[in-house]
Amino acid sequence: MKFIPDLKKLSLAAEKINLLKRSIGLVPTMGALHAGHFSLISQARKENDIVVVSIFVNPIQFGPKGDYKRYPRCLNKDIEFCRKLGVDFVFLPDKDDMYPKGYSTFINVEVLSGLLCGAIRPGHFRGVTTVVAKLLNIIQPDRLYLGQKDAQQAIIISRMIKDLNFPVKVRVLSTVRQKDGLALSSRNAYLSKKERDSAVVLFKALQLAETLISSGQRNSSRIISRMQELIKKNKQARIDYIAIVDAESLKKIDKVKPGCLIALAVYIGKTRLIDNTIIGCS
Amino acid sequence: MKFIPDLKKLSLAAEKINLLKRSIGLVPTMGALHAGHFSLISQARKENDIVVVSIFVNPIQFGPKGDYKRYPRCLNKDIEFCRKLGVDFVFLPDKDDMYPKGYSTFINVEVLSGLLCGAIRPGHFRGVTTVVAKLLNIIQPDRLYLGQKDAQQAIIISRMIKDLNFPVKVRVLSTVRQKDGLALSSRNAYLSKKERDSAVVLFKALQLAETLISSGQRNSSRIISRMQELIKKNKQARIDYIAIVDAESLKKIDKVKPGCLIALAVYIGKTRLIDNTIIGCS
Repeated sequence: MKFIPDLKKLSLAAEKINLLKRSIGLVPTMGALHAGHFSLISQARKENDIVVVSIFVNPIQFGPKGDYKRYPRCLNKDIEFCRKLGVDFVFLPDKDDMYPKGYSTFINVEVLSGLLCGAIRPGHFRGVTTVVAKLLNIIQPDRLYLGQKDAQQAIIISRMIKDLNFPVKVRVLSTVRQKDGLALSSRNAYLSKKERDSAVVLFKALQLAETLISSGQRNSSRIISRMQELIKKNKQARIDYIAIVDAESLKKIDKVKPGCLIALAVYIGKTRLIDNTIIGCS
Repeated sequence: MKFIPDLKKLSLAAEKINLLKRSIGLVPTMGALHAGHFSLISQARKENDIVVVSIFVNPIQFGPKGDYKRYPRCLNKDIEFCRKLGVDFVFLPDKDDMYPKGYSTFINVEVLSGLLCGAIRPGHFRGVTTVVAKLLNIIQPDRLYLGQKDAQQAIIISRMIKDLNFPVKVRVLSTVRQKDGLALSSRNAYLSKKERDSAVVLFKALQLAETLISSGQRNSSRIISRMQELIKKNKQARIDYIAIVDAESLKKIDKVKPGCLIALAVYIGKTRLIDNTIIGCS
């Protein structure tokens, strides 16, 4: 495994790899790697000759009041994590190399970036699409690995890749959960023991929605009301949004249909967590 | 020479070319090819194994009151032009393939895109950078050829390529002029005979600026005043802007210095023309 802290060196490496025509899989991360990343990296390892993991806490996707500074960082642990999984390259760019003085180019996926999480985090997805475009150009992967846990992020990145004709395939892998159902997230590290126990309420609310749908309920408002009731019983929890939307346009839909997305964001104490489920064919 | 009207087929072709590791030069155009394009294509021919010319009147770079519909189109003539210059591929995308239903991704080079021509053409450069990013991803060229006549465009595209780490070299070639000095532009086709004669006033104003600078004048305001005086003598001409700016930041500078850009936009009748010069070391 090699470390490439420098953009120029990585481009050179990418060129050599390209010459050999070996396929490259990229797993973009902000570090604090967990079993969700394990799933992405393992799949990338199966499907590509070369696996690149980028670890970069991307400043431009955090708002001025966001958690950029306190976002969990544990580089040595992350590197060991990658080594065990047989990662070929860990890309560790410096933020001043990524955004040097005079930097001024931003990519925006309009409409989609302002909905759901985008409503409370203005500029967040603009930061995400911009850094992903940079990583795609630097690494030039054949496949890009994303987690379904960040459903809106996966939808927006896929839209950007399609719209701008980036020559890369997107693979979105299922959310990895703890035993009680809590979706893995680096931000779970912020939770106290008590909050951790409460945090399962997001999953419970999604399970409730699925049960209601299985028993014939199709009315989005009624499903959302029931989810709200459930969450409000938990004193640690404060709902940011619960939405039932088309999984491509993210537009709200009145009647649940196969393939639609149920997504929610809930504050547990001061920590904002998200989760979602795609409704299967029924 | 092959014609590739379809995005998928071109990607395939690009892949095959890539396999052979032959260098690709891209000349992006909106057609109505003239001696300025001749210069770009000839240089691309000298420097690359494969030359691709794209011909696409890009709707998203025209404003609602812009000249998208009446922009000169002469495809058969353009194709013959390319054939004679030994172009390998002419890329003729369809606008609905480039911007299908649901298209929503746009690239913006902030600040730079709102200055000079961007002030009177909001959204113009956003349309330019977006289409160029798409072309770079579709064709994957090694070198991109741009004309100095569209100085701000070249500066903004270069900025985007640097910021987003696109793996391509930018070559900006000198403005090609008619005998009297008028910069070649597809929009010159809009001019009446009388307007055509008046249009040389842009070049004359730039010449005046260079003369003043040669004789020791460094004060931007005074130089601009003299240029204004000259242009105002011409009844067909109406100044949009005259600016002396830093050639990278496009910020106005009070004192002329080597490498700075003098740019102007002038309406000749209803046709808006632009021209510019870079001040040499002195």
